[in-house]
Amino acid sequence: MSIMEKGIVENLITELTKLPGIGRKTAQRLAFFILTMSQEDAKGISRAINELKEKARFCRECFSITENDLCSICSNNSRDRSKLCVVEEPSNILVIERTGIFNGLYHVLLGALSPIDGLTPDKLKINELVERVKKDSIKEIIIATNPNTKGEMTAQYINEILKPFHVKVTRIAYGLPIGGDIEFADEVTLGKAIEGRREI
Amino acid sequence: MSIMEKGIVENLITELTKLPGIGRKTAQRLAFFILTMSQEDAKGISRAINELKEKARFCRECFSITENDLCSICSNNSRDRSKLCVVEEPSNILVIERTGIFNGLYHVLLGALSPIDGLTPDKLKINELVERVKKDSIKEIIIATNPNTKGEMTAQYINEILKPFHVKVTRIAYGLPIGGDIEFADEVTLGKAIEGRREI
Repeated sequence: MSIMEKGIVENLITELTKLPGIGRKTAQRLAFFILTMSQEDAKGISRAINELKEKARFCRECFSITENDLCSICSNNSRDRSKLCVVEEPSNILVIERTGIFNGLYHVLLGALSPIDGLTPDKLKINELVERVKKDSIKEIIIATNPNTKGEMTAQYINEILKPFHVKVTRIAYGLPIGGDIEFADEVTLGKAIEGRREI
Repeated sequence: MSIMEKGIVENLITELTKLPGIGRKTAQRLAFFILTMSQEDAKGISRAINELKEKARFCRECFSITENDLCSICSNNSRDRSKLCVVEEPSNILVIERTGIFNGLYHVLLGALSPIDGLTPDKLKINELVERVKKDSIKEIIIATNPNTKGEMTAQYINEILKPFHVKVTRIAYGLPIGGDIEFADEVTLGKAIEGRREI
């Protein structure tokens, strides 16, 4: 047994395997790479982890991640406050922002409905969404939950619960991914793409 | 632009992409996972990185990684001091130890010869290997450098330089990987496997 089997290298390997998609072999490769990194680069990683854990909190309005009370989107006056995009996780905001197509505000549910896992409506930020609809002048709610069973169920539920408020509720489109090939599309996606066809 | 585009989340994502095999998407997934980890688990990772960088050093004898002056293999009196396994990197020791087949000591070269990259013999721990052969009662040197051009060149070079010392120098065997299929073996490996055949 080498010192590496129980010492500082092994300790880092064990810690790294707690991350998703990082098995023992990858963790080992990462740990030995970290050994060869400059002191500064390695400390940069550990400092970034600590900072994230110390400073990250949920935005008071939309439940995205922020260092402040309000996130930079909620506190940005140039955003269109009449549109609210509802997502499951804060990370989804990053992806949507990168499209450059949406200029409204967000609302993070912090999950999707999954009664079997105990994820009932009260566990998600759905009441908070209703409160925003009540007090803010929102004209459209775009539901961008995932295109799977849980995301669908969540979208349907939100649509139902928002009915009394006469706000327009839309769902992001299903269809073929750009650059995809019809031949390789699964039939459910292709069916949805045909259903959702538009005039050109 | 969200706070996430330049704040603490983005900072961790950038730091993580410095690691090998971690692209932006993986780094993003890891960062958001770290957000959801317990404070304790997340700090565990950053602490392990810091400890590794602060405490790791090379063993005075074999150049493996250790927290002490001598690594636990070199300071273990139950190891067979007449056999020395020469490897390129400290991480190779882990893999060989896991086989449970070798009970001797190691010698880490900290690289392989590659004159084109400026990796000449003086850049590796080859002189230190010769010193160990001179002063210790070593009977066999097992060269376990990688089975590629650099590793081969290094093995040949060490074999040449150790000739005057009349120590037995061996090279780990080439052959088919266990569980492999002859049909899918490349012809070089198969040729080596036939050359290295043994009586059964």
